[in-house]
Amino acid sequence: MNRVGVVLVEPRNEGNIGSVARVMKNFGFHELTLVNPCRIGGSARALSVHAWDVVEGARRVSTFEEAISRYDLRVGSTGITSTKGGEHVRTPALTPRELRDVLAARRGSTAIVLGREDRGLEKRELAECEIITKIPTSSEYTSMNISHAAAVILYELSDFQPPRIETASRFEFDLLIDHFGRMMEESGYPPHKQDKTLLMLRRIFGRSNLTRREAITLHGILRQAEWRFKKG
Amino acid sequence: MNRVGVVLVEPRNEGNIGSVARVMKNFGFHELTLVNPCRIGGSARALSVHAWDVVEGARRVSTFEEAISRYDLRVGSTGITSTKGGEHVRTPALTPRELRDVLAARRGSTAIVLGREDRGLEKRELAECEIITKIPTSSEYTSMNISHAAAVILYELSDFQPPRIETASRFEFDLLIDHFGRMMEESGYPPHKQDKTLLMLRRIFGRSNLTRREAITLHGILRQAEWRFKKG
Repeated sequence: MNRVGVVLVEPRNEGNIGSVARVMKNFGFHELTLVNPCRIGGSARALSVHAWDVVEGARRVSTFEEAISRYDLRVGSTGITSTKGGEHVRTPALTPRELRDVLAARRGSTAIVLGREDRGLEKRELAECEIITKIPTSSEYTSMNISHAAAVILYELSDFQPPRIETASRFEFDLLIDHFGRMMEESGYPPHKQDKTLLMLRRIFGRSNLTRREAITLHGILRQAEWRFKKG
Repeated sequence: MNRVGVVLVEPRNEGNIGSVARVMKNFGFHELTLVNPCRIGGSARALSVHAWDVVEGARRVSTFEEAISRYDLRVGSTGITSTKGGEHVRTPALTPRELRDVLAARRGSTAIVLGREDRGLEKRELAECEIITKIPTSSEYTSMNISHAAAVILYELSDFQPPRIETASRFEFDLLIDHFGRMMEESGYPPHKQDKTLLMLRRIFGRSNLTRREAITLHGILRQAEWRFKKG
C-alpha cells in the first residue's frame, strides 16, 4: 500500500469538509481533493481544528474526472448496496476491512471517493471506481455522515501501532505464580486446592496480558502479606 | 457480548450529541446517557438527522457515577496514552479491535464512556473504568472529534454482516476456465502458452471472488467470440 487520498464530490456542508480534514490528519492522511465544493469559511475552519492545513492544501477541481484521473485505483463509497445480481454499479462491495487487505497487497495511489451528503455518488461516478466499499450498518439507518464514513474507512487504512506497555516475560510470569504458591502455603490455604488455584491464576493473568509493572506490584502485595504472617 | 450503551460526559457542543446519536443508530446502538450536557436544541436535532429518537430517549444524569453505575463494565476512551509504567489510569489501553474481542468473550452490559470535547475524561473518571480504549492515531494529531471516536469504536463493536453476492461455485468456476480454454484453442492462441495462461486466469478470477453473475457474463463474451469465429 502507499499513497491514499480522499476525494469529496460536491460537498454542500462546509462543516463536513473541516470534519473530514480533521479525521484525515488523525489517521495520517493529508491529500484532499474537493470537486466543486461549497464555500469554505469559518465553520469548516472551526471543525477542522488543527487540520486547517489539510483544507488549505486541498486541490479544488471542477469535475469528477479531473479529481480521480491522477489515482491508480479509485474506491467509491456507497451507503446503498444491492444483492441483486443486476446492480453492477454498487456490487460487489468490500467492507473497509476487506478494502484494507486488498490495498495492503498492491502498490500505487488510491483515491477514497465520498459522495454528496444527500445522495452520495452518481451511478456514472461509481462506474468510474474500480472498487466499491460499503460500511456494514444497521438496516434501520444506513445513511452515515460523510466524516463518519471517512473516519471508519481511514481508521482501517491507517497503520499506526498502538503504544505497547512491556508485558511480563515468561520468567517474570512464572516467578509471580510461584510467589502466589508460597504465600498460599504460608497462609494455610488448603493444600489439595493449591494446584487448581495456581492454574486459575495462570489463566487470569494470562488473559489479562499482565504487564511487568503489574507483576511487580502483585509481588509487593504478596510480600506484605508474608511479612504480616511472620509478624504473627 | 450484549447490551452496549454510550455515555457522553459533559458534552459542550450540542452538535456532537446529535452526531454521536446518528452514528450510534447507524451501528445499531440506542442507549445513550448524557452526564450534565449542554442545552440541546436545533443543532443537535439537525446533526442527528434520523436519530433524533436516540437523543430524545437519552437518559440525562447529573453525575458520572449515576451514569456508569448501571453497567457491568465501563470502557473509558482516551486520546492520550502513556507507555510510562507509572501511568496506571490510562494504561494498558486496548485498541477498538482488541476491545471488540474482549467484549465478544463476555456477557453483561457495557458502557462506552466518551469525555469532554476539550479535555476528555478526568483521571478520577478513568479510574472508574475497568477497561481503557485508545484509537491508534498519528502522533501528529491525536485528538479526535468525539463523534468520530464513537464511529470507530461502534463500528468495531457492531456486528452487521455485509450483504453477500453469490460467488461462482467450484463447478461454475471450472466451467468458465474450460470455456476460456476452448475459446483460446478455437482462436489459435499459441498452444504452448495455454496452460500457463489458463492458470493465470484461475489466479485472476480466484483473487477477485468472481460472482455467479460475472461468470455468466464472461461465458457470454466467450460465446459471442466463438460465434464470430464460426461466422468466419
